[in-house]
Amino acid sequence: MLAEIRQQPAALAKTLAAELRATERLKKFLATRRPKFIVLAARGTSDNAAQFGRYLLEIATGIPVSLAAPSIHTLYEASPDFKDALVVAISQSGESTDTNLVLEKARAQGAFTIGITNEANSSLAKLAEHVFLVRAGREKSVAATKTYTGQLLAIYMIAYALGAPIALDELRQVPDWTAKALSLDDDIKIRAERYRFMDHAVVVGRGLNYSNAFEFALKLMETCYVVAERFSSADLMHGPIAMVGPSFPSFLFAPAGVTWPSMKEMMEKLRSLGAESLVITDQSNAEAEKLATRAIVIPASLQRKGAAPAELFTPIPYIVPAQLFAAHLAVIKGLNPDQPRTLSKVTKTM
Amino acid sequence: MLAEIRQQPAALAKTLAAELRATERLKKFLATRRPKFIVLAARGTSDNAAQFGRYLLEIATGIPVSLAAPSIHTLYEASPDFKDALVVAISQSGESTDTNLVLEKARAQGAFTIGITNEANSSLAKLAEHVFLVRAGREKSVAATKTYTGQLLAIYMIAYALGAPIALDELRQVPDWTAKALSLDDDIKIRAERYRFMDHAVVVGRGLNYSNAFEFALKLMETCYVVAERFSSADLMHGPIAMVGPSFPSFLFAPAGVTWPSMKEMMEKLRSLGAESLVITDQSNAEAEKLATRAIVIPASLQRKGAAPAELFTPIPYIVPAQLFAAHLAVIKGLNPDQPRTLSKVTKTM
Repeated sequence: MLAEIRQQPAALAKTLAAELRATERLKKFLATRRPKFIVLAARGTSDNAAQFGRYLLEIATGIPVSLAAPSIHTLYEASPDFKDALVVAISQSGESTDTNLVLEKARAQGAFTIGITNEANSSLAKLAEHVFLVRAGREKSVAATKTYTGQLLAIYMIAYALGAPIALDELRQVPDWTAKALSLDDDIKIRAERYRFMDHAVVVGRGLNYSNAFEFALKLMETCYVVAERFSSADLMHGPIAMVGPSFPSFLFAPAGVTWPSMKEMMEKLRSLGAESLVITDQSNAEAEKLATRAIVIPASLQRKGAAPAELFTPIPYIVPAQLFAAHLAVIKGLNPDQPRTLSKVTKTM
Repeated sequence: MLAEIRQQPAALAKTLAAELRATERLKKFLATRRPKFIVLAARGTSDNAAQFGRYLLEIATGIPVSLAAPSIHTLYEASPDFKDALVVAISQSGESTDTNLVLEKARAQGAFTIGITNEANSSLAKLAEHVFLVRAGREKSVAATKTYTGQLLAIYMIAYALGAPIALDELRQVPDWTAKALSLDDDIKIRAERYRFMDHAVVVGRGLNYSNAFEFALKLMETCYVVAERFSSADLMHGPIAMVGPSFPSFLFAPAGVTWPSMKEMMEKLRSLGAESLVITDQSNAEAEKLATRAIVIPASLQRKGAAPAELFTPIPYIVPAQLFAAHLAVIKGLNPDQPRTLSKVTKTM
């Protein structure tokens, strides 16, 4: 898992270089055929990437987005009308039977279909009309890491292809920023000691970093067997906050930008409750560090020019410290992050 | 909270009687104006009701459904194109500023809007073109119960108005079945003793009962301060299952029907891991009781004729034992379920 986390800057750079030409072709095609809505179908880590797509695509393109509920198609055998939709299935292996079924049925209805997968010869790559190939090499660790960031990158490219104001010269800086986040590796290993006996936690993110809360919590559950909740700051306030008392461990993604006031309010609340917090932020948001029990500050940020949200490109670099934290904490707890109990790499569900 | 749980059969019967005539008018209107997709906007318990709507409406009407992400509208100030949509906002108080904003912007774009609320004079009731009034009286307990089942009932009526095969003579039996579930009150009070020192748990549901997993977990978090995860059986298998070891407390909604094979597989898995399970089921699914550590069996089920899913009307009666369990467990733990720490009845978020 640690080796694969460290491969991410190279995998991202390679994926971007290899997929951009086809993305330009896709852009031309979609200009003549704008979908009425977008459906994203996935499971596990890929579903967390879909959660990112749910936000990015709706914010940046104005096209309504829905996350598919595969059981509606597999168990209830319903066929919602996806004729005017863009349907995107996301799967590391490309062999997730339920999400493949959603895509297949949608294509038969006339929907335009895109697959995001690591495997060029997978069923998904054959089923979809356009394929984004995550060029991260085979992922051996059961806990997905480089797959997730590669899928996020593909979703930026889909947004671009749909005409969203994604500046490619900014997107090209993401692998470098990811490398900067990786430079925190040794520091995070030392810091993770503190959490040796943590058995539950809550992870909070908002907007474009909401999916990172899901993904960090999933890594904590999979590799550290921590019962990790995940909420947006708004949803946590609507009830679950009652479970948070003194010393309750909380983890927060807190970039500068439009989500910061809401995250700041959350951090002040957690502080007033005596909860313990670890915030992941970067040098552009000095305030976050002050409000937290502990802070992981990613060096520098990327050079931005546009009027797009300040946090637009934070999700990929921000998940890296969380991945490192989970991988190190698993080892500290005496567990093997590459082979969590109970799990196998390809999970097939109905 | 207990008093309000017990008011549910009467509140449901009253709501059904009062709203059906307007539902027939709505049905006529929607027959001439079928939406391309449906967006549901809510927070907290109402968002769990929306999760139910996400499944019921897509399964029963074939119209694609999306759960709104309010921050896209409030923080990012994006305006996705909801012109051809039916937008439904759900709020007990009708004063949830973020979901009201989603509805208001959608209506300005030309979307047809529906509000589900307990308060006839609320902002939501004024903003929406059609209002379903949950006639449950004012809800005093911070932990919502009768609001949730009333909202579920309204969603059945929306499905009916959209032409779904919801048999009204079957829907009319739901208040009675809910009363039967309430007859388990004393039994559940005794059983809850066993969980006095439970501090974490996972709740599992699938399809139409997926929202009940969210709602039961929310009650456990709000009133018992239990760190309660919630997953579909498929999502739990995709990673989080690693956190489940011997004695891990699990709660499952397991009606007969199309979700049962998937839930059964989950129960067998939990059993093989030595986890502790409490299953909520009814007399029509004898198998569930055998696989669980403990079972709550709702007496009888309703008289069904149609070919609709066997579990179609289970969500309302099935949540009742879960509500009772949370309310009794809170008292057993020395807590006040009517006034959880930190919370107030109306939560306003950005």
